[in-house]
Amino acid sequence: MGYDAGHYDVIVVGAGHAGCEAALAAARMGCRTLLLTMNLDMIAYMPCNPSIGGPAKGHTVREVDALGGEMGRNIDKTFIQMRMLNTGKGPAVHALRAQADKVLYQQQMKLTVESTPNLTLRQGLVEDLIVENGQCLGVVTKSEARYYATSTIITTGTYLRGKIIMGEIAYESGPNNQQPSVKLAESLKKHGLELVRFKTGTPMRISKHSIDFSKTEIQPGDDQPKFFSYETNSSENEQLPCWLTYTSPDTHQIIQDNLHRAPMYTGAIEGVGTSYCPSIEDKIVRFTDKSKHQIFLEPEGKHTEEYYVQGLSTSMPEEVQLEMLRSVPGLEKAEILRAGYAIEYDSIIPTQLWPSLETKVLPGLFTAGQLNGTSGYEEAAAQGIMAGINAARKVQQQEPVVIGRSQGYIGVLIDDLVTKGTNDPYRLLTSRAEYRLLLRHDNADLRLTELGYSIGLISEERHQMFVDKKKKVEAEIERLKVTKIKVVDANPYLEEINSTPLEFGVDALSLLKRPEINYSFIERLAPSMEQLTEEMKEQVEIQIKYAGYIDKQMLQVEKMNKMEKKKIPSDIDFEDVQGLAKEARHKLNLVRPLSIGQASRIGGVNPADIAILIVYLEHYNRVTAARGANNDK
Amino acid sequence: MGYDAGHYDVIVVGAGHAGCEAALAAARMGCRTLLLTMNLDMIAYMPCNPSIGGPAKGHTVREVDALGGEMGRNIDKTFIQMRMLNTGKGPAVHALRAQADKVLYQQQMKLTVESTPNLTLRQGLVEDLIVENGQCLGVVTKSEARYYATSTIITTGTYLRGKIIMGEIAYESGPNNQQPSVKLAESLKKHGLELVRFKTGTPMRISKHSIDFSKTEIQPGDDQPKFFSYETNSSENEQLPCWLTYTSPDTHQIIQDNLHRAPMYTGAIEGVGTSYCPSIEDKIVRFTDKSKHQIFLEPEGKHTEEYYVQGLSTSMPEEVQLEMLRSVPGLEKAEILRAGYAIEYDSIIPTQLWPSLETKVLPGLFTAGQLNGTSGYEEAAAQGIMAGINAARKVQQQEPVVIGRSQGYIGVLIDDLVTKGTNDPYRLLTSRAEYRLLLRHDNADLRLTELGYSIGLISEERHQMFVDKKKKVEAEIERLKVTKIKVVDANPYLEEINSTPLEFGVDALSLLKRPEINYSFIERLAPSMEQLTEEMKEQVEIQIKYAGYIDKQMLQVEKMNKMEKKKIPSDIDFEDVQGLAKEARHKLNLVRPLSIGQASRIGGVNPADIAILIVYLEHYNRVTAARGANNDK
Repeated sequence: MGYDAGHYDVIVVGAGHAGCEAALAAARMGCRTLLLTMNLDMIAYMPCNPSIGGPAKGHTVREVDALGGEMGRNIDKTFIQMRMLNTGKGPAVHALRAQADKVLYQQQMKLTVESTPNLTLRQGLVEDLIVENGQCLGVVTKSEARYYATSTIITTGTYLRGKIIMGEIAYESGPNNQQPSVKLAESLKKHGLELVRFKTGTPMRISKHSIDFSKTEIQPGDDQPKFFSYETNSSENEQLPCWLTYTSPDTHQIIQDNLHRAPMYTGAIEGVGTSYCPSIEDKIVRFTDKSKHQIFLEPEGKHTEEYYVQGLSTSMPEEVQLEMLRSVPGLEKAEILRAGYAIEYDSIIPTQLWPSLETKVLPGLFTAGQLNGTSGYEEAAAQGIMAGINAARKVQQQEPVVIGRSQGYIGVLIDDLVTKGTNDPYRLLTSRAEYRLLLRHDNADLRLTELGYSIGLISEERHQMFVDKKKKVEAEIERLKVTKIKVVDANPYLEEINSTPLEFGVDALSLLKRPEINYSFIERLAPSMEQLTEEMKEQVEIQIKYAGYIDKQMLQVEKMNKMEKKKIPSDIDFEDVQGLAKEARHKLNLVRPLSIGQASRIGGVNPADIAILIVYLEHYNRVTAARGANNDK
Repeated sequence: MGYDAGHYDVIVVGAGHAGCEAALAAARMGCRTLLLTMNLDMIAYMPCNPSIGGPAKGHTVREVDALGGEMGRNIDKTFIQMRMLNTGKGPAVHALRAQADKVLYQQQMKLTVESTPNLTLRQGLVEDLIVENGQCLGVVTKSEARYYATSTIITTGTYLRGKIIMGEIAYESGPNNQQPSVKLAESLKKHGLELVRFKTGTPMRISKHSIDFSKTEIQPGDDQPKFFSYETNSSENEQLPCWLTYTSPDTHQIIQDNLHRAPMYTGAIEGVGTSYCPSIEDKIVRFTDKSKHQIFLEPEGKHTEEYYVQGLSTSMPEEVQLEMLRSVPGLEKAEILRAGYAIEYDSIIPTQLWPSLETKVLPGLFTAGQLNGTSGYEEAAAQGIMAGINAARKVQQQEPVVIGRSQGYIGVLIDDLVTKGTNDPYRLLTSRAEYRLLLRHDNADLRLTELGYSIGLISEERHQMFVDKKKKVEAEIERLKVTKIKVVDANPYLEEINSTPLEFGVDALSLLKRPEINYSFIERLAPSMEQLTEEMKEQVEIQIKYAGYIDKQMLQVEKMNKMEKKKIPSDIDFEDVQGLAKEARHKLNLVRPLSIGQASRIGGVNPADIAILIVYLEHYNRVTAARGANNDK
């Protein structure tokens, strides 16, 4: 059945936030890449909040950018608001957040995808996999086109057996009444992948002219916006404000009165929702002590009246939604353009994946994005670029690239997914990272640009700029170390800011360590002869001020790296390891960790089991080495 | 079942090219209007060619604009190419044609719809009508919202039981794999509307970088573009060229070789396609004498690589499409982004409609657009605005507005539909109009602005401008009539252009009638003291030059108007009219014409039948009048 529609290196199914990154990465790495999607007018569609970034998520976008991904550049071109969050706190939690022009975001990503060499874009409904001898060899579309590739990446988002739920209503659908993808779910199951039902939700959209902004607080963008991409230096984009209001006691009462109609509680929703992005009815039920919740009113673009009602995600019946909405100050006369809804969909249990995002059961098949049990565009993009890179490396017969937990949130995300799995749609949080102070917004380039360059996703020019930045930062730190500040020079300035005067001369670096002193203070006393950008100065300051904490975390990382370096050969049978607890044995067999480090993070695998495993491995390695030596004779 | 979601004056279902005009017209006429559509991101979507205008169609857009509709303004804001076609021919067939930026066109129309007072926009899937006592009272959505209104307008385009067909493949779908509307079709049938199956088709889209433009001819836009709307005076839009190439003998051979797989010939397509926009396989079969067909390569927007392949509409299997495409000079390496396909859908037999576009069987229910058996965005918009106007007038308890065949293409279109019906998707052609010289691109405002103003869709300001233009044109014609041109003044100029020299002085008007002389020639000899715009000068010239033809057609119109004025009372039973031919009687009962004029255009009703009908009516009217007189006693 069907016809041979062509042979590619990499096929990507789905052109959402995961699929676009995957396809762009593979194509830019020189692979002949095919990107298949249901409707070309829906590329990089934002069916929920048209927003990128925020804590952990924003960091991840920076990492995607440092690796040579597209999300950062795309949002920098199309934002309508840019804000650095948490600027009052330490640099680890500084996080950039942008509001996108939804239509422009799509248009820009589509253009990029269309214009990238090696990348073939094609409208098509993928319904089946081509599998031979336990290998995934490609896909079959509804039009019976058979496309072949060494690596295939599936990114179906919330479309896989999607189902929209509102109150007592439920029907098969993708987001915003698009077609769901049904047959592909059957195909994945048939080929041995275990699926679970997850759900996510979205609030209502309302029309601008029906909002009474006078009852809300303005939330403007930053005057001097920063950007997601290390390539963006400036922007002409005009910014629009968002607006803050709160739920009222009436809102809470209306929800309480209608809980018997909430699908979350009537059992109409089978899928598990994310704990970290709950619906308003969930929040009311779970946080009974809170008398009000924040509601942000966010424009969906420059050329639309649609406003997103952040904080009111709901799957209540339509008529209850209107009542809830109108109980919020400023929204008394709000008109709903689209009602909120829950959407339930199939995702795979991510412990079925290697850290490369290749499925264990079907070599050649990779998965990325919401399909892997995550939530959020940024999490999707992060997996997308990694799946794209590893799909390409498989074609090029190279080892997969796996980002460590100390290298980036991308590492945390994927390690968590494939090692621990997830019981609900996984969302990145800074609290998920044990080396938070290393994984900062500001240093994503220092962490990942070299990797992106070595993979082939960072251009020579950009790499050169990066090396230059790195060198200048290091040189400046060295200079500050050896630059003596005289008492007579410093004290008048110190007095100005009520900082303890110096008794003896001191080096500039030590002075900068004082909490109340920043780089620009030092600059006045001992300016550099080099042209340093604001970014470089910020880097110098953070590296010096937080050196103590950073060094401490680096030590922990080294320890962990030792564990990560203790590789577990893939042919080990955990049944042979005597003394393991039963649960540990079961989980180890399930996850098949690639290192002691990974094994130690599996839930149910205890330190005692790890100790036993280490001893077993040492023995195993000695025996294997001896055998090898014997064979060599 | 369901909840009361609100009471409106007018409900419009579907926000395509008919639905947007309908909703805007009703809202602007002061009616509380609800516009429901499946996905707000698909408003004013152009699933086929992103182009507006051309012969008859362009005229119609001008008429929609003269009535106060939106299509003209919208395309003027978003065009990427504007061309006046047929400038070498007479003014009756001058036709403006624009290429739209597909995304911008949608975005702009969505913004207009969102910002219009009295207009509520709402995402929703309409699945049923509310009918009581034979009246349509509103609609029910999938979310069980019951919306009530005095008038309901359905505009489902190609979504009603939509089915995509390509070669041997067929599946339920709206355009570009969107959800079809299935349940609403059942509801329409249940309530007595007769549906037929029509089909249309679209060619493949290809990527710009895969085209060898050197083998094609450039088709630039006009240097001094004209506009569709009488409100548009200038534009900053940059224009993009289109490109012309031709099918090759290979193309024809490939199609011949694969005809056994063409759904049009295998019987896979049940629906009837339009004769005037045939697929390429149709053209090859029907016009065997033509050795090549034109192919225009047209950009779909400023920020996309997608090109529309006008002329290659097809429902051949995907793999044959690629072969066909690559046999065209310049497309040897073309890459398909989207394959062409046929789409089959339900439409109603339009003789079930009154000229107001209200259904005969279900008072309160109007239909417009492709649902009524037409093809084309312009035909849809024309019906949309008329349905919107008449739905609003029903609310306001006013007589419907019906545009005459001599007033506009809109009149021709609707009269043809409701009087003659159509056997295939109806497309406007200049040849369908009997008063072509009256229905010109240039004079749509003179024909319809007063009507638009009286309806309430044309603002005071715009009306004043119109009155001013009309006065100035008339005054200028009068001036030219009385302005004497002296022999000595004229002859040097006449010699310049090889025009016969004058022997005696002559009035300017007579001189302008010479074919070789245009207004600007006259202007040099006898300039006006008034500030006349180019548009006014063009009007003066056309009215003078074509006065003879125009007067002749006006006489015919007067004759016809007499027939149109002979109203047929709605309570007449054609069974009572003795002497009518059987077929005529049947057709008259089916269509229930409102005038002798309309009756005379019904297929199967012959002049003999009309003569009998006139006699009968005279008798009937005398009797009725006598009865009335009796009753008055």
